Amino acid sequence: LVDQNMSDFRELFFELHPTDQIEILNSVTKKQRSAIYKYVKPEEFAEIFQGLEVTKQKLYISELQQNYAIDVINNMPYDDVADFLAELPETTKDLYLSKMNKEDSEEVIQLLKYDDQTAGAIMTTEYISVSSTDTVGNVMERIRLEAPEAETIYYLYVIDEQLKLVGVLSLRDLIVSSLDQKIEDVMLTRVRSVETHTDQEEVARMMKKYDFLAVPVTAQGKLVGIVTVDDIMDVVDEETEEDFGEISAARGSLDANISAFSAAKKRSPWIIMLMFLGLVTAGVIGEFEETLEAVIILAAFIPLIMDSAGNTGTQALAVVVRGLALGTVDRSSVGKLLKREFGTGLMLGVICAITLLIVVPFLYPEGGIMLAAIVGVSLFITLSLATMVGAIVPLIINKLKIDPAVASGPFITTINDIMGLIIFFSIATALLDYLPQ
Amino acid sequence: LVDQNMSDFRELFFELHPTDQIEILNSVTKKQRSAIYKYVKPEEFAEIFQGLEVTKQKLYISELQQNYAIDVINNMPYDDVADFLAELPETTKDLYLSKMNKEDSEEVIQLLKYDDQTAGAIMTTEYISVSSTDTVGNVMERIRLEAPEAETIYYLYVIDEQLKLVGVLSLRDLIVSSLDQKIEDVMLTRVRSVETHTDQEEVARMMKKYDFLAVPVTAQGKLVGIVTVDDIMDVVDEETEEDFGEISAARGSLDANISAFSAAKKRSPWIIMLMFLGLVTAGVIGEFEETLEAVIILAAFIPLIMDSAGNTGTQALAVVVRGLALGTVDRSSVGKLLKREFGTGLMLGVICAITLLIVVPFLYPEGGIMLAAIVGVSLFITLSLATMVGAIVPLIINKLKIDPAVASGPFITTINDIMGLIIFFSIATALLDYLPQ
Repeated sequence: LVDQNMSDFRELFFELHPTDQIEILNSVTKKQRSAIYKYVKPEEFAEIFQGLEVTKQKLYISELQQNYAIDVINNMPYDDVADFLAELPETTKDLYLSKMNKEDSEEVIQLLKYDDQTAGAIMTTEYISVSSTDTVGNVMERIRLEAPEAETIYYLYVIDEQLKLVGVLSLRDLIVSSLDQKIEDVMLTRVRSVETHTDQEEVARMMKKYDFLAVPVTAQGKLVGIVTVDDIMDVVDEETEEDFGEISAARGSLDANISAFSAAKKRSPWIIMLMFLGLVTAGVIGEFEETLEAVIILAAFIPLIMDSAGNTGTQALAVVVRGLALGTVDRSSVGKLLKREFGTGLMLGVICAITLLIVVPFLYPEGGIMLAAIVGVSLFITLSLATMVGAIVPLIINKLKIDPAVASGPFITTINDIMGLIIFFSIATALLDYLPQ
Repeated sequence: LVDQNMSDFRELFFELHPTDQIEILNSVTKKQRSAIYKYVKPEEFAEIFQGLEVTKQKLYISELQQNYAIDVINNMPYDDVADFLAELPETTKDLYLSKMNKEDSEEVIQLLKYDDQTAGAIMTTEYISVSSTDTVGNVMERIRLEAPEAETIYYLYVIDEQLKLVGVLSLRDLIVSSLDQKIEDVMLTRVRSVETHTDQEEVARMMKKYDFLAVPVTAQGKLVGIVTVDDIMDVVDEETEEDFGEISAARGSLDANISAFSAAKKRSPWIIMLMFLGLVTAGVIGEFEETLEAVIILAAFIPLIMDSAGNTGTQALAVVVRGLALGTVDRSSVGKLLKREFGTGLMLGVICAITLLIVVPFLYPEGGIMLAAIVGVSLFITLSLATMVGAIVPLIINKLKIDPAVASGPFITTINDIMGLIIFFSIATALLDYLPQ
């Protein structure tokens, strides 16, 4: 495709969807890319560039001539420019901002001010706003003109003279209305909006709940942008990725396409840190060496205690992490949830303890009923507490806004392991005289 | 709100978004609901009913008079009717189908034929299709008429005389065109579509990749429906829920709002099954009782081996489960991924082994260098294999379409535990004479 002459290339290339154009760009050599840059106009390349990953954006922009690069940036939506520039070193960022059209760069500088992962950071400023006193016919005419620029034309936002958001109407509402109707007679006055500082997860939840295609963003009641559903799909993916990493201690290394070396580099800090925690667990067992020496069969139950403590903790963790992500767990429901988890832990503990009281004497008759009792009671106490640890730790983390990696599945599992083994060996040591040695 | 008179109630109630109307309905008593049914017309209630959860739908429809209920169903979109009826017992389903308008019931029967979790099952048949020889002006007029019925008016699908899908255009394209242009001159002929049997995850991936608001569904090239982005958001949530349950053995019990008893009931089968697997692990340790008796300090390393094997396995599992969900792992890339994971496992093994060779002689000087060597080498072999187990098991499960619970995090962890302990104790037993006893 790339090796053809310009007009053939353009004909074939521009029949493709931008997503497919990106795939071609990413799959060709540097030399072929230079050919593409020559064949494609800056304003056309802008369309492709805004869909690229940041690492690719940085690479390709370095291959472009500066004038071409500036033209590309001038033709991109403001939110995409801001996202790109936010990743550049301060000096390069300022260079591009100074070369951009003044009007554009002001909008971008405004967007760059918003905190990461807020509505302000993911919103676009290219929406269509209308006045409540306009007529349907006038607005239709404006849409015709502004459609190529706007990110979505399917929702129109109605503002008053102070730029305050006063209503919303969908293109659907507009189309079924007669041309001479006033906007204020067809608009909905109950508009749901978010603030620039609203967390992007909160925005995603609202859009999912109400099936919105876009939601307006306000600052002190003034309309400043909109967040569209395609941006929200990316947010949902990003948040799921985070939650997944949290459960599996694989944060930042879930990408299936990186090299073995990069994967090992990203995962090894977790594994080594967890291995040192494993050495702490080893120390706990070392403390009870005498007990173990007296009743060696106790060692066989180490995995059972560890597995059960870890699993119940991970289940409770998964419930809380998902609940926080979906918004079903919030301040008002936390107390209820903790009570629920404690109850669940107690019940799981009772069920497991009874099962062990029946099974253990059968499997390890040499231990007698006392061994079964020790294992059963330890597990009961451990599971009741392990469920609480699994539920409380992520809630505290979330509240304190600490790095959530601390609440990851393996960390909670290790805490529960240590707790479970201490409970088990303490009870066994206390009752050592009653155990057949 | 509910206790007011009819006109006041209607005024307040219909100012609300259907999602909020649902919340009111779900929060009032049965008696108050009867009042609502009286105040709200069937065609208005249909709007609310289609957004309810199935359990609520079943409850509320049983509270309605039959004629009212039939009217509600007749006024719902076909896909929502099909989703609801699919959950009813055969006889009730047939009753409703027989009372519905004939034309509507035929459409619904057609939809009920599609397999769960496919494009056919989640699509709607209420789309707008146009002919390529129509003019823009004619189509605009048709949209004005059909807008209240159609699920989306923002994409229009162009079909030929055989109902084959030949093009697509967005309302945006339509609006910026002049009224006398022919549809064939403004439509895109490269249409991406899915088949009725396409998996819903595949549909979600395509819509996310191309930022589509809707995608057409075909059967033998004929257009039969569309899937819209709000349906896809629900699919994404559903699939994330599945994947989360898979990692944490909490499948089907991630809901934060069920009672402690229900939560315990749903989680206990996993915990008990895993506890029995823990007893297998106990058996493995029992087999090596003599070795343990000779060198009791070996017991201290049981948690270390188990934790590290479990953690590397879970990381690999998380990568594969996410990769399958996002579509970054497919047939062509599986070989590459496995090679990658094997390499990663080797590297993680080397790093951990070296760390232990340094740390263990310092922490456990009584074990000498030989103890460190046994622990280090065991961990190296275990981690190399554990990573592969974590990657391969979910791939096989996915290929064989078995219940993915078998590939859940805790199961893989337990398999890796058993493997790791066998390796560790086998090596220790073989080298027992070289260990200080």
